[in-house]
Amino acid sequence: MKHAFSIVAILFFTAQITCVAQSNYEPSETNQPGKEYPKVNSEGRVKVSILAPEAKKVQLDIGGVKYDLTKDSEGVWTGESAPQDEGFHYYQLNIDGASVPDPGTKYYYGAGRWGSGIEVPAKDKEKYALKDVPHGKVSEQLYFSNITQAWRRCFVYTPPGYNKDTTTEYPVLYLQHGSFEDETGWAEQGKANLILDNLIAANKAVPMIVVMDNGYAYRPSEGSARPQSVFEEVLINEVIPLIDTEYRTKSDREHRAIAGLSMGANQTMRIIMNHLDKFASYGGFSGTSNYPNSDEIDTATFLDGKFHDGDAVNEQINVFWLGLGTKEPDIFMKTVGAFKNMLKKQGIDYTFYESEDTAHEWLTWRRSLYEYAQLLFKN
Amino acid sequence: MKHAFSIVAILFFTAQITCVAQSNYEPSETNQPGKEYPKVNSEGRVKVSILAPEAKKVQLDIGGVKYDLTKDSEGVWTGESAPQDEGFHYYQLNIDGASVPDPGTKYYYGAGRWGSGIEVPAKDKEKYALKDVPHGKVSEQLYFSNITQAWRRCFVYTPPGYNKDTTTEYPVLYLQHGSFEDETGWAEQGKANLILDNLIAANKAVPMIVVMDNGYAYRPSEGSARPQSVFEEVLINEVIPLIDTEYRTKSDREHRAIAGLSMGANQTMRIIMNHLDKFASYGGFSGTSNYPNSDEIDTATFLDGKFHDGDAVNEQINVFWLGLGTKEPDIFMKTVGAFKNMLKKQGIDYTFYESEDTAHEWLTWRRSLYEYAQLLFKN
Repeated sequence: MKHAFSIVAILFFTAQITCVAQSNYEPSETNQPGKEYPKVNSEGRVKVSILAPEAKKVQLDIGGVKYDLTKDSEGVWTGESAPQDEGFHYYQLNIDGASVPDPGTKYYYGAGRWGSGIEVPAKDKEKYALKDVPHGKVSEQLYFSNITQAWRRCFVYTPPGYNKDTTTEYPVLYLQHGSFEDETGWAEQGKANLILDNLIAANKAVPMIVVMDNGYAYRPSEGSARPQSVFEEVLINEVIPLIDTEYRTKSDREHRAIAGLSMGANQTMRIIMNHLDKFASYGGFSGTSNYPNSDEIDTATFLDGKFHDGDAVNEQINVFWLGLGTKEPDIFMKTVGAFKNMLKKQGIDYTFYESEDTAHEWLTWRRSLYEYAQLLFKN
Repeated sequence: MKHAFSIVAILFFTAQITCVAQSNYEPSETNQPGKEYPKVNSEGRVKVSILAPEAKKVQLDIGGVKYDLTKDSEGVWTGESAPQDEGFHYYQLNIDGASVPDPGTKYYYGAGRWGSGIEVPAKDKEKYALKDVPHGKVSEQLYFSNITQAWRRCFVYTPPGYNKDTTTEYPVLYLQHGSFEDETGWAEQGKANLILDNLIAANKAVPMIVVMDNGYAYRPSEGSARPQSVFEEVLINEVIPLIDTEYRTKSDREHRAIAGLSMGANQTMRIIMNHLDKFASYGGFSGTSNYPNSDEIDTATFLDGKFHDGDAVNEQINVFWLGLGTKEPDIFMKTVGAFKNMLKKQGIDYTFYESEDTAHEWLTWRRSLYEYAQLLFKN
């Protein structure tokens, strides 16, 4: 009897929790102005709603899972996902087989398209919240690339006060997005500007310029040859000289850092190791240059032997930093693991950061930037 | 017989023209990277395509008209619109009753939502083309408004060279969007930065700063009272002091202009007439403050009699400029017409510009900015 009562009590308690979670749905912070849906609840469930009176089937497609919505008598389809991880997620709706953005959200470039995004509030959201602190600016910088023979664009964060004291020079962090993303990612879903604003206001990071370029760069196509990435050349020969001309930078290697996420981590590691005269600090967020190979790294051949002399690496690199979410796919666990093993074997100093309960997603990278930026330019 | 031949010839000739137009569809410049559709042809027709295998009915909704698409055996729906005016248009798709953005385009804020936009190349597109000239920057400026008790944002264009010579001070144009648009409109679909870059490079306009704020501003809601717009207070008491602090401005009235489109034209006319100590030039693009009333204007009462003394207005305003598309809806023709009649009657000097073959749309406003900016700050 007591046992039965307990079960009833537990069921009742569970029902109450569910009820609270059901009733505490709030419009997402990524919604378009005035839009009620999508909503997120305290469990991290995402609830969407769309008028589609003639549709046969409408689904919410998020986190690799499709959830069927149900239609009411007015033709409005509504439904919710399972709980999602904290942080930012790309998603879409599927209406009778058409994959389309949810007209309720703002749009973000990721997964190779401009599409819907949603924010599940995180415990540590204060790190990247818009607060009453001095704010830097994010500027669009257009430039013509002679290498790619095309107009390109980067975004440049200048710290609070940059425009006021026009004599101060600043160190620069070059910060790259991942695959199927672009130069808008870090300042939009990455919230890089707010992270820096908050760190600088708290005296946790030194004021710095952050340059966010597009990691896809190819020479004009020649015949049927597969286009070869020339991002390294564009960054070294075009972007850095442009930034050092257009902005008040400290232009020596000690005051220049480079970091990236996923594909960007891979790219920027190659770039710093090829150009140690240009950069003194590296950050790899959810990625390393041995990707996708998780075998033991042979330092004699890996990146042309650039990690073979561990002491030389230690001498030249001030901050060597790696970050990874605890819920990342196996391939990242294994490849970053193999890379760390190599660093240990070579006696190379590095910092490793684990982002709790996050996958290969933007909360991992926001946290990584938050941690990494605090270590820069402090020697 | 000759007559019949002529008809055949005409039909044949027409068919050829149609055939050329059909075959010269090109991906729109507003497409997402790598997307083939939507396309635009030389007639200005818009052709869209979307995979929606289970849908019953799919439509293209552009220019207030819905066009049915047709489905092929693969489930891909395709169809085209009638010829559209040159310039930029908002549009959407309708899938079984759901109004959604076209996943092929980039997204723009207008018509009260972030949604699809398409560019029909105009004869005078060089005015706002991205060219090999020095480019200014567009920066995001966050600020907390004590009046609205909310974070707000404006975008600020600084001309080429702003960061290089850090002693030069610049005049400022405050430039406002229309109803159901926001602070992103002028630098995105308006191409204000490219228009200024091109004018400055051609020595047609003096280098100036352009500030693009959000015209919607309300005090925190109090009870059930209808919120009262406080944009004028925000602009005068918060935005202008912020800009004069953050940027190297010439901060006297002679070096400050204000302009807006549609609702923004209405708002900014009120603002300059209430603050002639702050601004010396006005531009009204497709709008005037008598809107929606097209009756003869009584200058004794209109805007508290601010136009009653025509000589005083002439003395204080350097440039009084009005622009209108030749295909604008009747209400704008009539209200702007009534306003011009009042100016004539009062002997107030003004410039009137007609944008050929454009309606209440962005090409009218791009052209207006192109003309208006050339007249500013030249006394």
